[in-house]
Amino acid sequence: MFKEAIYHRPKDNFAYAYDEKTLHIRLRTKKDDIKTVYLLYADPYEWKDGVWKLNREPMAKSGADDLFDYWFIEVIPPYRRIRYGFELTSENEKIVYTEKGFYHEAPTDDTAYYFCFPFLNKIDVFHAPEWVKDTVWYQIFPERFANGNPDINPEEALPWASEDPTSTSFFGGDLEGIIQHLDHLVDLGVNGIYLTPIFHAPSNHKYDTTNYFEIDPHFGDKQTFKKLVDLCHEKGIRVMLDAVFNHCGYYFSPFQDVLKNGEASKYKDWFHIHEFPLQTTPRPNYDTFAFVAQMPKLNTENPEVKKYLLDVATYWIREFDIDGWRLDVANEIDHQFWREFRQAVKSIKPDVYILGEIWHDAMPWLRGDQFDAVMNYPFTNGAIRFFAKNEIGAKQFANIMTNVLHSYPENVNEAAFNLLGSHDTPRILTVCDNDVRKVKLLFLFQLSFTGSPCIYYGDEIGMTGGQDPGCRKCMIWEEEKQNRDILEHVKKLIALRKAHPAFRRGKITFMDASDESNHLIYTKTYLDETILVMINNSSKEIDVTVPLSLKGKWLVNLWTKERFAVESETLRAIIPPYGFLLYQVQDW
Amino acid sequence: MFKEAIYHRPKDNFAYAYDEKTLHIRLRTKKDDIKTVYLLYADPYEWKDGVWKLNREPMAKSGADDLFDYWFIEVIPPYRRIRYGFELTSENEKIVYTEKGFYHEAPTDDTAYYFCFPFLNKIDVFHAPEWVKDTVWYQIFPERFANGNPDINPEEALPWASEDPTSTSFFGGDLEGIIQHLDHLVDLGVNGIYLTPIFHAPSNHKYDTTNYFEIDPHFGDKQTFKKLVDLCHEKGIRVMLDAVFNHCGYYFSPFQDVLKNGEASKYKDWFHIHEFPLQTTPRPNYDTFAFVAQMPKLNTENPEVKKYLLDVATYWIREFDIDGWRLDVANEIDHQFWREFRQAVKSIKPDVYILGEIWHDAMPWLRGDQFDAVMNYPFTNGAIRFFAKNEIGAKQFANIMTNVLHSYPENVNEAAFNLLGSHDTPRILTVCDNDVRKVKLLFLFQLSFTGSPCIYYGDEIGMTGGQDPGCRKCMIWEEEKQNRDILEHVKKLIALRKAHPAFRRGKITFMDASDESNHLIYTKTYLDETILVMINNSSKEIDVTVPLSLKGKWLVNLWTKERFAVESETLRAIIPPYGFLLYQVQDW
Repeated sequence: MFKEAIYHRPKDNFAYAYDEKTLHIRLRTKKDDIKTVYLLYADPYEWKDGVWKLNREPMAKSGADDLFDYWFIEVIPPYRRIRYGFELTSENEKIVYTEKGFYHEAPTDDTAYYFCFPFLNKIDVFHAPEWVKDTVWYQIFPERFANGNPDINPEEALPWASEDPTSTSFFGGDLEGIIQHLDHLVDLGVNGIYLTPIFHAPSNHKYDTTNYFEIDPHFGDKQTFKKLVDLCHEKGIRVMLDAVFNHCGYYFSPFQDVLKNGEASKYKDWFHIHEFPLQTTPRPNYDTFAFVAQMPKLNTENPEVKKYLLDVATYWIREFDIDGWRLDVANEIDHQFWREFRQAVKSIKPDVYILGEIWHDAMPWLRGDQFDAVMNYPFTNGAIRFFAKNEIGAKQFANIMTNVLHSYPENVNEAAFNLLGSHDTPRILTVCDNDVRKVKLLFLFQLSFTGSPCIYYGDEIGMTGGQDPGCRKCMIWEEEKQNRDILEHVKKLIALRKAHPAFRRGKITFMDASDESNHLIYTKTYLDETILVMINNSSKEIDVTVPLSLKGKWLVNLWTKERFAVESETLRAIIPPYGFLLYQVQDW
Repeated sequence: MFKEAIYHRPKDNFAYAYDEKTLHIRLRTKKDDIKTVYLLYADPYEWKDGVWKLNREPMAKSGADDLFDYWFIEVIPPYRRIRYGFELTSENEKIVYTEKGFYHEAPTDDTAYYFCFPFLNKIDVFHAPEWVKDTVWYQIFPERFANGNPDINPEEALPWASEDPTSTSFFGGDLEGIIQHLDHLVDLGVNGIYLTPIFHAPSNHKYDTTNYFEIDPHFGDKQTFKKLVDLCHEKGIRVMLDAVFNHCGYYFSPFQDVLKNGEASKYKDWFHIHEFPLQTTPRPNYDTFAFVAQMPKLNTENPEVKKYLLDVATYWIREFDIDGWRLDVANEIDHQFWREFRQAVKSIKPDVYILGEIWHDAMPWLRGDQFDAVMNYPFTNGAIRFFAKNEIGAKQFANIMTNVLHSYPENVNEAAFNLLGSHDTPRILTVCDNDVRKVKLLFLFQLSFTGSPCIYYGDEIGMTGGQDPGCRKCMIWEEEKQNRDILEHVKKLIALRKAHPAFRRGKITFMDASDESNHLIYTKTYLDETILVMINNSSKEIDVTVPLSLKGKWLVNLWTKERFAVESETLRAIIPPYGFLLYQVQDW
């Protein structure tokens, strides 16, 4: 037995409250090393005649990645507190694993050996808004979505889509443009929009805020924004804005004040200034985002700054009823700020969605006291490498996804913001080398995955473009220039996701993954519904055996609506190159 | 190479801010598997001509336990942010370990592969009070320390030390008794006292509070308490009280109100009541500490309760200038409460010490937002098993201590509350089967260990007693009945600890540990001071070779003050049974 591979530590993704009554406990062991795992557990104060009696329940293998197996169990402790250990059996050995190490037999003379989940306190339970789990997002980069009001175009605005964007070009996209195209969103079926920044800022991306309390005049005014939110809400679409709180723009008046007045400025502690006077070259002598002099880092530890930013955060909720905040460069701001941010926004709108931009492992922000979700780039990265780039085979892809899912608690995964691309990454059709079939598989995977998926504007109609600024081209509105094939595919998937809870919620189980044929078969299960997804991510037609005993079941092809009864023990399926099959499994 | 044993996850004990500028990074590998580890790191935005250039610095092996080696490095990132990975070399392989897995060569086309410490924000740095690191605590159970004012004895009080205590006996100990014996504490050399609860409560231990705003009348009044604190402060002694916030006592008036008025009580949400009317048998139908009906659990999620308890916490600091709060059953209260508790108490006294009672791994409470320390029972448990009970050999003991030290960040270890026993454990002399030599070794180890050690009243004079109530006997004040030998030993150790910063601070390195001879040799180093401790934890005299090259150094025996120059390559030492040698290493 490989003891060194065995890992458990209470809290985070290994032991957490799933809801007010339920604990989830996970264990990691070396791949294929352990045959069975039992959870040994009891209430720490439940002694009978001087003996502490342990319960013993089998744990299930919940997945595997390259190196490890993961084991899972759900427990409802009657008094909301437990001590627990693990009984592991390998081919030739049985051991008990506790906080104090390994034992041949489970000690029962003291509870102190055991792992401790001291008390399930409701207020500490991670709790993301319910609606997020049933939302399909659509990310809009407002300067490039639609020009609804040419009167407020920037002076230098170019005719719509007249050329490829540079990092400084303007095309006049605005809020009125979004309003005018809400039908596209409704038609597509999305029920959430995420707008990159819309506050007053000089750049086209507006991540360099000048005034957090004003809509950028080239995007519109507050009245227009209010109209947009109200119209969205009427249509069942939630609205999320982008909070750029890590840094401001160069023209933010407190920063201008410091530029002007130096050490005498009353705003000098709003920033992290190394020396006066301020200089921007060769490198800024004040902290910035990256080394960008135009983006001075805000001192979010300063109570005045904190108050200012929390006022911003609550203002747009209170006055405009927005439904979410996406937090730019979220992990470079202090945790203390985010804890207060959560308290502030949830106190005025308890089901507002808090989404952090974190590209890395983000467990420290997802413990219930800070964010509801992060932009799930590990998901993105895995999906792109498998479907778009063919850098990894089906097995490794399944391993990566299993690893991602086991990096966080289940209630965190349920609200994860799963994107295929954004304004910060090349467009998926381009990454797929213009192979529409691959893009379709990407959407299939994304939209059948548990969490809150987000479509980057234009990806649904096959827009192309490399890394920024290439991925920020003007939205194509002429139908004849849109890829209607991709559009219909995405619409159909979103409709299926709406119709079938198991599509959008529940557990994913990788049933089969082959590096030879590069196919992937998984099920999604939620309550009593099971959906079977079979993907051929290769250029050859394949003939696969379905790794499920389906005899006596109906299979409903959700794509074609065909329905047939399975009468044989094994079932084989032919899947075309870069094709898929999608079944709902029903009892006879 | 055993990849499955390799572990790192940013934050907690593996990557943390040691101070406002410094990151500590640790890695865990299988014991004896890896020859060298280098940290590969860079600022994520520091690209030169399209290339991301990684720095490469060797990591040091900081210790080993049963299964693992631990590696350590300190980094000061110029812009307070880094991405990093590890280059590991074993006998026959070299790999690079990153957040995304293992590589043969370090990828430099993207920073996303790497582990991320996004930003060192000052406010998130774990920061315990400086004074705690130089404090030796003395724990007093007031009912049994000294009876200074017989006028306020409980009616049923027995003559002092007239018999062994039961769980319900009283002997009349009080605050005035402590005041009268402060000289003992000064003489001993302690500079902090921790009092178990002193607020109004019916029991002798007073963990069943009736009134959090009053001193128990059998202990004294506020004036007496104020006098005690002032006198302590005059003598350089800090005062810590016990906050019993998990539960109240049966006679706490809000609970009495619920008992009386049931569902109509305005206090019904102050508790966790399952049904009305309240019942105490067979089990209470409301949440309690353990299953003790006399200790109803408080609903610390209720804002009224929270306000009440935070008022209590700040009242005793504001009005009486206490220096610390020890938090009873701390891990059964919600994290949110403790975060607000920290904010509340630190805002009025920034260097107040917050000490949680947690017997288990307590990392989730030691992330900087909640406690400064926990009662370090894993330390206690290891020391008792090795020195007192001989259950484990010297090697396993060194492994356990190394494991304890690597379970937390270094700045957490520096403020850890290291106890050998308390009112909740049998007395050390009793556990040592009355072997004074073993007790002396326990004190030597405790008082030479980094952290904040605590002596349980009476242990310093050789009091005996088993598990509660045995460990709560009346303090022995007749000198002829005190073990003056232990007392002088402890005084000498405390004096050494005061005189030598390396005794109380700095790094412990286990140089040698033998299970055959059961000896243990370690050094303590702080700034330019090194202290060498050699312990023979066996019943035979031993002859050991000092595992240090000391040629050309002075060795000062800190116990005898003898001093000699080392002229040979190797140095041997004779250590008597259960004896020790203590040297300061000086340059010639």
